[in-house]
Amino acid sequence: MSAQAPPATPAGAIPTVAWRGTGADDLPGAVVLIDQTRLPLEAIELVCADVETVRAAIRRLSVRGAPAIGVAAAYGLVAGIQGALELAPPAFRDELARVVDRLRTSRPTAVNLGWALDRCLRAIEGLDAPVAIARRLLSEARAIHDEDVGFCAAMGAHAQELVRDGGVYLTHCNTGRFATAGIGTAFATFATARHRGLDIHVFVGEVRPLLQGSRLTTYELQERGIAGTLLPDSAVGALMASRRLDGVFVGSDRIAANGDAANKIGTYQLAVLAKEHGVPFHVVAPSSTLDLTLASGAEIPIEQRDGAEVREFGARPTAPAAYPVWNPAFDVTPAELITSIVTETGVHRPPFDVALAGHDS
Amino acid sequence: MSAQAPPATPAGAIPTVAWRGTGADDLPGAVVLIDQTRLPLEAIELVCADVETVRAAIRRLSVRGAPAIGVAAAYGLVAGIQGALELAPPAFRDELARVVDRLRTSRPTAVNLGWALDRCLRAIEGLDAPVAIARRLLSEARAIHDEDVGFCAAMGAHAQELVRDGGVYLTHCNTGRFATAGIGTAFATFATARHRGLDIHVFVGEVRPLLQGSRLTTYELQERGIAGTLLPDSAVGALMASRRLDGVFVGSDRIAANGDAANKIGTYQLAVLAKEHGVPFHVVAPSSTLDLTLASGAEIPIEQRDGAEVREFGARPTAPAAYPVWNPAFDVTPAELITSIVTETGVHRPPFDVALAGHDS
Repeated sequence: MSAQAPPATPAGAIPTVAWRGTGADDLPGAVVLIDQTRLPLEAIELVCADVETVRAAIRRLSVRGAPAIGVAAAYGLVAGIQGALELAPPAFRDELARVVDRLRTSRPTAVNLGWALDRCLRAIEGLDAPVAIARRLLSEARAIHDEDVGFCAAMGAHAQELVRDGGVYLTHCNTGRFATAGIGTAFATFATARHRGLDIHVFVGEVRPLLQGSRLTTYELQERGIAGTLLPDSAVGALMASRRLDGVFVGSDRIAANGDAANKIGTYQLAVLAKEHGVPFHVVAPSSTLDLTLASGAEIPIEQRDGAEVREFGARPTAPAAYPVWNPAFDVTPAELITSIVTETGVHRPPFDVALAGHDS
Repeated sequence: MSAQAPPATPAGAIPTVAWRGTGADDLPGAVVLIDQTRLPLEAIELVCADVETVRAAIRRLSVRGAPAIGVAAAYGLVAGIQGALELAPPAFRDELARVVDRLRTSRPTAVNLGWALDRCLRAIEGLDAPVAIARRLLSEARAIHDEDVGFCAAMGAHAQELVRDGGVYLTHCNTGRFATAGIGTAFATFATARHRGLDIHVFVGEVRPLLQGSRLTTYELQERGIAGTLLPDSAVGALMASRRLDGVFVGSDRIAANGDAANKIGTYQLAVLAKEHGVPFHVVAPSSTLDLTLASGAEIPIEQRDGAEVREFGARPTAPAAYPVWNPAFDVTPAELITSIVTETGVHRPPFDVALAGHDS
């Protein structure tokens, strides 16, 4: 299936997240990232060789997107403990627990972060020697990375039944190579369609306050040669009223057992508008995004971010100083507004509690 | 009714739009405006003594808001012809026609602009001498100005039946003193409620791309001592899902005979979301906003603005250079999503074609 997918990272481009070893066995090393806060103006590589640098990169959204955060956290664990390999095993375990906590608390909503850390911890059960643990953590992080590349390709392939030549689509936020280790989640739909030779058009809102649509999705559409149009977030309703859209594709940061899906703020209102206009609404996310321990979206923690993101643009104020702001990073779309949920295993239809129950997350 | 209203312009503040005469009979003179593109960072007065300066101020939104544009155009007519008073009457009439055209074509959607110009032209029917015409135009512009002040006060008073102490409301764009010559349209509801001592809370979106919510409405809420919260335009759906709102109040730039209302882009999707959440949706606008010559909103011309407004912030690019943008300044909310239309004559309920038919516009 991967063979049909376009490459995750265009030739010569800085990857979204990767491990760069400097030693013979790739240890020590560092997490390398393209700094997404600077795109599309400049492509700058960040090198994060300790846990605080990785945590800060996640918090300020230099790396973002639920699957990419998971991969960054897995590599971040290796970066975080590589300076402690001389410690005795009990002290090393304490340091490991501290590093895990620093990464786990960097952002609250994307379940992929905790999922990746828990998977890494399971992989080192029974190991005692710090160097052996570090090597095993690196191999597990690479496995998560490689798996995400494959999951993206699979999601893109499965989603082809939902698109057509000449189709016009809407997406939200950024769900492509900058949100994953591969070709993306929702964006994989478009990248794969284009790779197959389909002629499609993708509308994308700006996604205030951090403009992931303006800055990242437009950039990826250009990279893949996909026709696109940028519009203000507030123009989506008018767009749907003025022309027929063939579908809305979004990613997700956490999906509850009943199919309720948390995603970038604004997703919920897109889903309401899609229903009002009879437009299919698809969520595309790997199984690492499922949190079957939560019965519904009401239990998903929603990150509240600093009001300065809304009161300022760059360093320039756009509102009165210290004006009160409500700035949730995510919202929850109820399952009844979702037409299908696409994972690496296929296209799932309601009732989602049944469709998703078989996933091992 | 005006006696119950708060003052249109706080003491010491630069007015939204006014005529400042320099001669004995206030002719010649100039249109003076606060430059709204610089708010809230700095309060700068613009002095516009000729038609091109007025036209440019309207086009770049230094003065904006349908009623304020109407008043600015009426004064702009005086500014535009005051240099031509030495011409013979036929040549003066040609110049007058040219000035009217420059003002009429400055922005397409707000009907108040053409309404004010037509009213001024009717006022000078039968007059021949340029100086007499100029004086009559100035007095008509002042009448429009004064009438707007009174209409705002009346709208604010009528709308009190739609608000309550402790109420939580949402508004869109800016509809207060910066959008009118008085205390506003939708905003007059809040200003009057506060003046009566009601404790209310007003949420307002940013209103990309030009941030009239962030920049102007927050500023006016602070001026009037009204509690407010700013949020991204994309967070409105999540807000309605997370707490009970008591009403949405918006202005309008043109209302068709059936009650369909054009207003700032994003209004339509607010109306869809309000319906989904059972929140009353009120349009507040003076009768000069009615265009009973149009059967429905489908006939309202919608201004498309430069994509650079969305691709850039200030001079800083936020999207790839020359990326395609869809940037409509307005959208149309169908009458069936509107709970009531408040004009200076009262609160009107559906069917709006009947309710609005008595207005003389």
